[in-house]
Amino acid sequence: MKSRAFPDIVRFVIVPSLFLVCLFLGKPAQSQGGENMEKKFLKPVSLKDVEISDRFWAPRQETLRKVTIPHLFKMLEKAGNINNFRLARDKAHEGYSGPYWMDSDLYKAIEAAAYVLAKHPDPDLEKQLDDIISLISSAQLPDGYLNTYFEVVEPDKRWTNLMACHEMYCAGHLFEAAVAYYEATGKRNLLDVAVRFADHIDSIFGEGKRLGYCGHPEIELALVKLWKATGEKRYFDLARFFILKRGSKYFAQEHNIPLDQYDGRNVQDDVPIKEQKEIVGHAVRAGYLMAGAVDVGRETNDDELLQAVLRIWRNATQKRMFITGGIGSSSANEGFTTDYDLPNLTAYQETCASCAMVFWAHRLALLYGDSQFVDVMERALYNGALAGISLSGDHFFYVNPLESKGGYKREEWFGCACCPPNIARLIASLGNYIYAQSDDGIWVNLYVQGKANIELGGKKVGLEVVGDYPWDGHMIFFLHPSESFEFSLYLRVPGWCRGAEVRVNGKKEENPRIEKGYIVLRRAWKEGDKVEIDLPMPVEKMVAHPEVKDDLGKIALQRGPLVYCFEEQDQNAPLNYIYLSLDSDFKPKWEKDLLGGIVALDGEGMACEGVEWKEQLYQAVNPRMKKVKVRAIPYYAWDNREPGAMKVWMPLYPSAIWQK
Amino acid sequence: MKSRAFPDIVRFVIVPSLFLVCLFLGKPAQSQGGENMEKKFLKPVSLKDVEISDRFWAPRQETLRKVTIPHLFKMLEKAGNINNFRLARDKAHEGYSGPYWMDSDLYKAIEAAAYVLAKHPDPDLEKQLDDIISLISSAQLPDGYLNTYFEVVEPDKRWTNLMACHEMYCAGHLFEAAVAYYEATGKRNLLDVAVRFADHIDSIFGEGKRLGYCGHPEIELALVKLWKATGEKRYFDLARFFILKRGSKYFAQEHNIPLDQYDGRNVQDDVPIKEQKEIVGHAVRAGYLMAGAVDVGRETNDDELLQAVLRIWRNATQKRMFITGGIGSSSANEGFTTDYDLPNLTAYQETCASCAMVFWAHRLALLYGDSQFVDVMERALYNGALAGISLSGDHFFYVNPLESKGGYKREEWFGCACCPPNIARLIASLGNYIYAQSDDGIWVNLYVQGKANIELGGKKVGLEVVGDYPWDGHMIFFLHPSESFEFSLYLRVPGWCRGAEVRVNGKKEENPRIEKGYIVLRRAWKEGDKVEIDLPMPVEKMVAHPEVKDDLGKIALQRGPLVYCFEEQDQNAPLNYIYLSLDSDFKPKWEKDLLGGIVALDGEGMACEGVEWKEQLYQAVNPRMKKVKVRAIPYYAWDNREPGAMKVWMPLYPSAIWQK
Repeated sequence: MKSRAFPDIVRFVIVPSLFLVCLFLGKPAQSQGGENMEKKFLKPVSLKDVEISDRFWAPRQETLRKVTIPHLFKMLEKAGNINNFRLARDKAHEGYSGPYWMDSDLYKAIEAAAYVLAKHPDPDLEKQLDDIISLISSAQLPDGYLNTYFEVVEPDKRWTNLMACHEMYCAGHLFEAAVAYYEATGKRNLLDVAVRFADHIDSIFGEGKRLGYCGHPEIELALVKLWKATGEKRYFDLARFFILKRGSKYFAQEHNIPLDQYDGRNVQDDVPIKEQKEIVGHAVRAGYLMAGAVDVGRETNDDELLQAVLRIWRNATQKRMFITGGIGSSSANEGFTTDYDLPNLTAYQETCASCAMVFWAHRLALLYGDSQFVDVMERALYNGALAGISLSGDHFFYVNPLESKGGYKREEWFGCACCPPNIARLIASLGNYIYAQSDDGIWVNLYVQGKANIELGGKKVGLEVVGDYPWDGHMIFFLHPSESFEFSLYLRVPGWCRGAEVRVNGKKEENPRIEKGYIVLRRAWKEGDKVEIDLPMPVEKMVAHPEVKDDLGKIALQRGPLVYCFEEQDQNAPLNYIYLSLDSDFKPKWEKDLLGGIVALDGEGMACEGVEWKEQLYQAVNPRMKKVKVRAIPYYAWDNREPGAMKVWMPLYPSAIWQK
Repeated sequence: MKSRAFPDIVRFVIVPSLFLVCLFLGKPAQSQGGENMEKKFLKPVSLKDVEISDRFWAPRQETLRKVTIPHLFKMLEKAGNINNFRLARDKAHEGYSGPYWMDSDLYKAIEAAAYVLAKHPDPDLEKQLDDIISLISSAQLPDGYLNTYFEVVEPDKRWTNLMACHEMYCAGHLFEAAVAYYEATGKRNLLDVAVRFADHIDSIFGEGKRLGYCGHPEIELALVKLWKATGEKRYFDLARFFILKRGSKYFAQEHNIPLDQYDGRNVQDDVPIKEQKEIVGHAVRAGYLMAGAVDVGRETNDDELLQAVLRIWRNATQKRMFITGGIGSSSANEGFTTDYDLPNLTAYQETCASCAMVFWAHRLALLYGDSQFVDVMERALYNGALAGISLSGDHFFYVNPLESKGGYKREEWFGCACCPPNIARLIASLGNYIYAQSDDGIWVNLYVQGKANIELGGKKVGLEVVGDYPWDGHMIFFLHPSESFEFSLYLRVPGWCRGAEVRVNGKKEENPRIEKGYIVLRRAWKEGDKVEIDLPMPVEKMVAHPEVKDDLGKIALQRGPLVYCFEEQDQNAPLNYIYLSLDSDFKPKWEKDLLGGIVALDGEGMACEGVEWKEQLYQAVNPRMKKVKVRAIPYYAWDNREPGAMKVWMPLYPSAIWQK
């Protein structure tokens, strides 16, 4: 009947309290980034003081140096990014190539090359960069303005469309490149260009000047770097202005959009950051903005700002992040949608967005000295970001799905080529992310065989690190202090690890002090002291929160920091018909000739022929199945052979019987 | 980047053709109700010629006679349905009780009582009915109009709100009751009332007269019954008028709604039936309308109409029907939503809607002689509909969820009491649904121990049926033709059955002819011939089509025609923590003292303590679990003990680990 009330429906959805026996699995909860986290203000250890000599990252950096960097500049010439500067230098007004932000791709490549130069002096490369820098400088206008799009195409429209035109975004990448090149070579050629442009921007925008900020955040964190490199406080003040003014709905004003019709979320201009509750909009923009906000909050001790950043962080990492550490669920906005909307086949997870997660997480890790932030940084680095580049170093993913039906593969370049130089600069600068220091000690965030030289209270400490991470969890540290003295060694216990053990000079520490996810070893360290940490790396079967509908009934494999995937070519049945069981036993196996050397995970799955659905709505099932050997490989390594089907999240038997 | 195109996303969702080895499970596909189905024009066999003596239905009919019928009239007096007629008789204009359609509940109760009387002459009950009929008659106006709401409350508003006020709906139930009482007793007292009212309606509505039809279909099928009982062809023509005119958007006109703002779907007034593609709107209305449309299509051989009905049928049964045969997904409209939206906890599945499915399916089964329609009829009858009434006969469900968290229970009556007399009239008239006949033979649609006497081409055939259906699939038929003659015996092979076997006089038929789901045994039958059919009844694990999101990762148990459910009180762990496996072995066990005697299904499940979710988005799992004995009972029998949690669809291990 139509007009009756529905008292029944009300009654039967009332959930009587059930006695729920819940079991807690896993290691004790870490602090969850609550509102009143103690700050540690760690300082980074520069890549200049770090050597990498492992068999995971060192070969990648070598490929980067030999293949990727030349490839980047070749493609930047071919695509017109470099030529745009020639056009600007020559005051041409025709011939511009590509989107608004072409300059930034060149700047990021220079930044990547600068990190390479910092560790590997190379006169040829330096000469090539100097020539390009000279070209860039020649395109800068007398007032300091520098943007080839506006100089060539729309000279009268400078700063009129901050929302879409990426002027400050390009400036930011110029500043980052300039600082990197200055720190690598000591040369001010690009830094001077940056300073002139920064001064120009600072003459227009800021407190008491024009309101405005960039549609694509980036300049904020870059201005902080420029301030630190030059000591010019105005740059920091401008960064702070951009951070704190954001959310003023400036873009509505710029584009004459009535406020009641304005949704600024995609460019993070809906509310001031301090009022923001969720991570919203375009994922790369969101990540860069948050990184800049941590910088500003840290320097000004702005707890209101930092608490907002932590609130947004929790939303991002607890509800909107892929298991690979990447972000961005939808291609529609290259960004966020709703909580727990984490599709696999259509995961956007832009390579740049995984880089942004590394930048953001690293800043929080340094500020709070809490390993939960490194957990996310490590996850994004080893998985979401690293998948962005081929093992050969010259092919790239822009979009990183967690599942492919086959046919999706890396490209050598893109019409919008933001990702290739971004992953390049991240890998080249890896040395910056491994260690940190505080007044009282040395912090080990990532485990990478190599060396470090750290100055601690005027004394020097050499660290020698041996181990095969991420393939093995046994790492050895030899300490070489310039003299024996007391300090703390903070060894991170990764969030994925249960049962970590530590030994000092062969003797097991029975109850080591653990603070915020770090084992803290404090003593007077002397030359040759040996510290070993054992991080057991069983193959873990991961499940996603039940609200993540796309992962329901599925598991993903993880071992150590590496998330695994299944490529069809490694299987003995069509990938779509393979499922796993919670009882499936997976064994790690080192395969030196496979995909540059990997630990593959070999185990047993079931292959099910599926249930055919014709017109029935219900049918009885009795699926036929057989056991099959299955193999998983690290997610970062997928699509380095013939393109084929791939899955990170594997259906558990018997969910496979629902295949159509 | 914001403004790039997304060619990549296009490429990677292109699904390369995969070699899919699909396995067909189950019996060969039946005809799916295609466009050009052959019509068989079967005739029903009246309940007057049928005896029911089994241990499933016979006790239910006895309870109905002894408990339900008296309960109905007691409640109809208490709720004011009967008194409304006194008010109308007395020309009162105050004191009316209940919604517009109060009259219909009384008519349905009379109809139910008439079916009881047809088999069990009972002078006291007949006297009670005659008194009520006398009262009804006294409330009829001189022009034949009869509706206590309008007579008492809004005498000037007759036929002004066909959409909402149910005048014709009430008239339809009057006609059905009148025909049933006339056929049961030979008395015309109520039939005369019906004829006067039908003539009155026919004087107003119809071709060349007023356009209009009822917001709640029902009168259409009732007018067809009235035509058959009286021979008055005008009644059929009026039914046809209502069927064919429906979709003219009359209600928009009646309520002065601009056509571009009118959505007539809930009352099936959006498009003419012949153009309708899906089953839409209020479920009971849709089912009654379709039943009437089959009647009209059959009598006029209107293939365009019948093809539309079959198209709507396929949509209903292949995409919008619960496994219990019921319909209506949402309480919001008591009706349909979208394809495959079949929620369990909030399933509406009104008892009346399951009755409507029986009425509709029965008419299609008679028209086409195809067992697929009986499959749905049987499913709705034994499950969705039968659950509507308690074993005690005096409590009722209006809403029939497929899952309860506990606390939901049957009521003795409702403010809108359409369901109690509806399930009563269905059970009382069960004899009408068991057999059918064609010129060439006898059709067995339902298997019910008892007898039938069927006249075939002037000769008589007595059928004696022995068996314990639905608990057992072995049925024996003894034939008693008045003389030996040739005819066909059509034995339905239920859609749930694989491996049916048939024996004639002890000899197995090796390759019996099968037509449209019936085994056809044609020969010259003689006195005492014995036919046995064996319908194996293993416990089947049913899955729903993968688009039914609410059933994904779940199975339901079915044995024979009965869908089973799990009540918490039969389990050894909280229901919410129990899951099944595809390997779980269930054994049927006859429990004579449980729930009036049932075959329970005993098996083994797993009880899992679940995974606790705090703030994590991903975690490693290693759920603890233990085997537990579990028991399922027929769905119709649930909530006949203390109210508790219930589930039809049980999660399969390991999906249970996603519990929150």
